Amino acid sequence: MSRFLNEKISGLEPYVPGEQPKERKYIKLNTNESPFPPSENAIKLAREEAERLMLYPDPECRELCLAVAEEYGVSPENVIMTNGSDEVLNFAFMAYCDDNTPAIFPDITYGFYRVFADVNGIPCEEIPLKDDFTVDIEDYVSKRGTVFIANPNAPTGIALPLEKIEELIRANRDRIVVIDEAYVDFGGESVVSLVGKYDNLLVTQTFSKSRSMAGARLGFGIASREIIADLNRIKYSTNPYNINRMTAAAGIGAIKDKDYFVNNCEQIIKNRAYVTEELKNLGFELLDSKTNFVFAKHPKMSGSELYLELRNRGILVRHFNKERISDFLRITIGSEDEMRELILVLTEILEK
Amino acid sequence: MSRFLNEKISGLEPYVPGEQPKERKYIKLNTNESPFPPSENAIKLAREEAERLMLYPDPECRELCLAVAEEYGVSPENVIMTNGSDEVLNFAFMAYCDDNTPAIFPDITYGFYRVFADVNGIPCEEIPLKDDFTVDIEDYVSKRGTVFIANPNAPTGIALPLEKIEELIRANRDRIVVIDEAYVDFGGESVVSLVGKYDNLLVTQTFSKSRSMAGARLGFGIASREIIADLNRIKYSTNPYNINRMTAAAGIGAIKDKDYFVNNCEQIIKNRAYVTEELKNLGFELLDSKTNFVFAKHPKMSGSELYLELRNRGILVRHFNKERISDFLRITIGSEDEMRELILVLTEILEK
Repeated sequence: MSRFLNEKISGLEPYVPGEQPKERKYIKLNTNESPFPPSENAIKLAREEAERLMLYPDPECRELCLAVAEEYGVSPENVIMTNGSDEVLNFAFMAYCDDNTPAIFPDITYGFYRVFADVNGIPCEEIPLKDDFTVDIEDYVSKRGTVFIANPNAPTGIALPLEKIEELIRANRDRIVVIDEAYVDFGGESVVSLVGKYDNLLVTQTFSKSRSMAGARLGFGIASREIIADLNRIKYSTNPYNINRMTAAAGIGAIKDKDYFVNNCEQIIKNRAYVTEELKNLGFELLDSKTNFVFAKHPKMSGSELYLELRNRGILVRHFNKERISDFLRITIGSEDEMRELILVLTEILEK
Repeated sequence: MSRFLNEKISGLEPYVPGEQPKERKYIKLNTNESPFPPSENAIKLAREEAERLMLYPDPECRELCLAVAEEYGVSPENVIMTNGSDEVLNFAFMAYCDDNTPAIFPDITYGFYRVFADVNGIPCEEIPLKDDFTVDIEDYVSKRGTVFIANPNAPTGIALPLEKIEELIRANRDRIVVIDEAYVDFGGESVVSLVGKYDNLLVTQTFSKSRSMAGARLGFGIASREIIADLNRIKYSTNPYNINRMTAAAGIGAIKDKDYFVNNCEQIIKNRAYVTEELKNLGFELLDSKTNFVFAKHPKMSGSELYLELRNRGILVRHFNKERISDFLRITIGSEDEMRELILVLTEILEK
């Protein structure tokens, strides 16, 4: 830290991304990436765009917004494209929270919410998950502030049904509810269909997981056109050209290749069922996942021990050194081969 | 605007990027893009990366930082890579300004400085350029606050020599001086060489102009390792994966293709000399440009009139409706053909 840094930033505790080790080849099950390459269509369009890089991208991302809007049955004015869904989430903290409007979210959820609140100097309230790690909407109904719910939640993987989310949105029409659907395509219920009905709903999604584009940095928000206009004010006040030309092109290619997307999601769900079954056979306890990862613990070994044993054997998973969940591992659902290898290695570790 | 937007954001006046019209084909001389495609090497590496998009990028951008560090004779720890240089500039406002540390910059300069200050709730002081549109370092020497100087300045194109910048840095070692060198490769003097000497200097540059990569979104900051650590705190608190895989690869390709870069810069300087001469012959008054644009006015026609006449004839330039400079046009230096066409069309307009 330099001697010049202001108080606000020096007091921050930044987000810690999953490790990306370079020293050896791992089976990477720690950052919820897709085991499948991006759509051939996405690759092709991105490559074509590479020779036009001397020109700025379209700051409005018109063509991409149109493609996303068509896919989700909304108007392009209901869509904002961002540099990963992290960017649209940060914009929402900037737009809809202030000293009198705290950010409200579960105590166990995507770790970045807390960081976004802190970096923007926003007060926040973390509401404990129930003992079974579920979100109880009742806890949020009477709260004043802007609510951020990851649905399905991370790292638990547990999803809330649409009716519960709608109950939350309806409970207080004078506050914004942000539903972060990063993992929704693996078995959750999206509330995008409610955007036309409620002007206090912002839904965020990402191309990182179900569309195999974590490396391209593309996310989006869907909401009323007024909310999208708000978020664009922030975009045009921080980084109007937030999406590069290649990523915008890849996004169009990916969204139009629906069959590939659907097949990949189905395969992940199938692999999740397999690995869930096998982990249970090994004595693991798992939460009910609707995502591309499982959250599991074993009665005989601590989370940190299991994490290290796996790491030593070339398999990376995510371990959170945090109260209530320190015995769990978050394991990304990879390819069939990777899942078989995982089960083999875990069997070996547990039989030791 | 929605009824939920907080006061701070609703009071903002966002940045207005140069227009990117779609309805017809223009000669685009309005956003300071390069007329040359990116290096073949950059295109090749970006294309190769497209099939690996399912994996997150390296948040540390180690390989790219190393390539930039080598090129500029610093260590990788002295480099931060960002989503355009706008992002590193915004980080600097976030890190080094607060209620007691205003942002200080010229009244006529890159329009985004004011927006960055506003979006971060930072007080700022705009110091008028001299009558000849130069920056007088004396005006800044005794000021308390963080100084932002674009060198060469935009939209004037005028550069300060290294000694003057060093005088400013030395005048007060207890404040940060940010030198925005977006246009330095077209004839300015970079102060990157002073980074090892002064711990209160941050230099920012971009791949958008001289490296033909405006569409890839890549910029960087060079400073003491402490300053870089500060800026990384903000990166890891807003968007750790700010650079996508394809852009990072293209950046490595571009930085290593030095001949192409040098040749393109030389060609732009040559085209600038040509167009400067021809514009003078047509009666234009020009400021002394060290950039890839010229800032010119004609005694017989207003800036807005000239802008519109050019636009009607298929040539886009940038006009700022702002006191003192409303009679000027900012004209990007394009290819030889584009410059010849510009002169032909201006001759036609002025002979009318």
